[in-house]
Amino acid sequence: MAQPGRLLGLGVGPGDPELITVKALRLLRESPVVAYFVAKGKKGNAFGIIEAHLQGAQTLMPLVYPVTTEVLPEPLSYEQIISDFYDQAAEEVAVHLQAGRDVAVICEGDPFFYGSYMYLHDRLAERFEAQVVPGVCSMLGGASVLGVPLVYRNQSLSVLSGVLPHDELKRRLADADAAVIMKLGRNFHKVREVLGELGLAERALYVERATMSNQKIVALNDVEPMSSPYFSLIIVPGERWQG
Amino acid sequence: MAQPGRLLGLGVGPGDPELITVKALRLLRESPVVAYFVAKGKKGNAFGIIEAHLQGAQTLMPLVYPVTTEVLPEPLSYEQIISDFYDQAAEEVAVHLQAGRDVAVICEGDPFFYGSYMYLHDRLAERFEAQVVPGVCSMLGGASVLGVPLVYRNQSLSVLSGVLPHDELKRRLADADAAVIMKLGRNFHKVREVLGELGLAERALYVERATMSNQKIVALNDVEPMSSPYFSLIIVPGERWQG
Repeated sequence: MAQPGRLLGLGVGPGDPELITVKALRLLRESPVVAYFVAKGKKGNAFGIIEAHLQGAQTLMPLVYPVTTEVLPEPLSYEQIISDFYDQAAEEVAVHLQAGRDVAVICEGDPFFYGSYMYLHDRLAERFEAQVVPGVCSMLGGASVLGVPLVYRNQSLSVLSGVLPHDELKRRLADADAAVIMKLGRNFHKVREVLGELGLAERALYVERATMSNQKIVALNDVEPMSSPYFSLIIVPGERWQG
Repeated sequence: MAQPGRLLGLGVGPGDPELITVKALRLLRESPVVAYFVAKGKKGNAFGIIEAHLQGAQTLMPLVYPVTTEVLPEPLSYEQIISDFYDQAAEEVAVHLQAGRDVAVICEGDPFFYGSYMYLHDRLAERFEAQVVPGVCSMLGGASVLGVPLVYRNQSLSVLSGVLPHDELKRRLADADAAVIMKLGRNFHKVREVLGELGLAERALYVERATMSNQKIVALNDVEPMSSPYFSLIIVPGERWQG
């Protein structure tokens, strides 16, 4: 029997194809199979990032999400559907691994920082050798294009999801020295309201698709709430340390 | 007069030289001057990471910290000494920029994530064109070698400094879904105590110099507090989401 292949979780960075690491690029090119999560009918952000780096002979393995929203009519359960989907995706990946082929799972940003790769890792890392190559995460891509230091010295950084309820978001933001709010999309309006209530709206910076070719930096007040994409984020930088 | 050079803040990643991005590597090689912060008598972590990537004809510009500890006898003030040092370093860099030479300031991890580059950026970015290339930060390097997903889905991540007083550290840790504690060193003993009080010691993972050639992963209970280096960190991963 063939030696099993390796499961490779490759962070490909926040969007600019040049922000992939030398290591992820090497492993990507060496992998006979390249897998990636993608929404139905879309190309996928991670795939778009690495497309230009691919060699001819690699097998592409899109893992297509069965649903595009977390809000589903009863008796459907998002958790159940998505969990079944990850089970099945893991088995499809396992077929290649068992046949001795490495599978590179490409992830926008970093695999262990809110990346979907984690759900394959949780299902397969005990059965197969797994290696994770960390990547530049979106919040650091965002800080770099906004040109603003994120956290100084001994400041605490809070990374928060825009999905959090108003009061919890407010409590956590009030307690943060510096903060990043991800997963805006339809949560944008609530998030901006909370920032205003805390007097943080002036300090907060907004960017869409940071480092991608269609990146957009907009003043927080000028953002059209309904048009804010999922891949946007808000940074509340730490107060400048005079050092 | 020559067109001024660009100030380049290049994240070089957490330690493994292959974890530099393609972009930082390109700009590093194109820069006539390479600057880096370093402790007296040391080679410097950032320099060690990129050493093998250098071309022959580049000017190296070590910026040597005047002090090695933040605790100084009266009437000396760490803040004052370090602030003067950054002022002076900025002026030395400015000489090259004014002469039309790009200066690449290399930073371990990411430039805007607790990086010393920030102090040059704050002093020079208004006078000169500045470009920051984000890097893989140490906490994601740590998660990758520990093989543990850091944050799932809508969990909040708290990045905390080991310097925080016992009670504040405890309060913030108790409130976190997932946490990373940096700057351990002499703070290790206190941090482990706090984790124990919160019942988090079992879940916490410890790594020294993640992704470097002398990386060390040790069970939290087996760490010798006095030997924990500054470049160690503790990760309290988020609870696995079953998705």
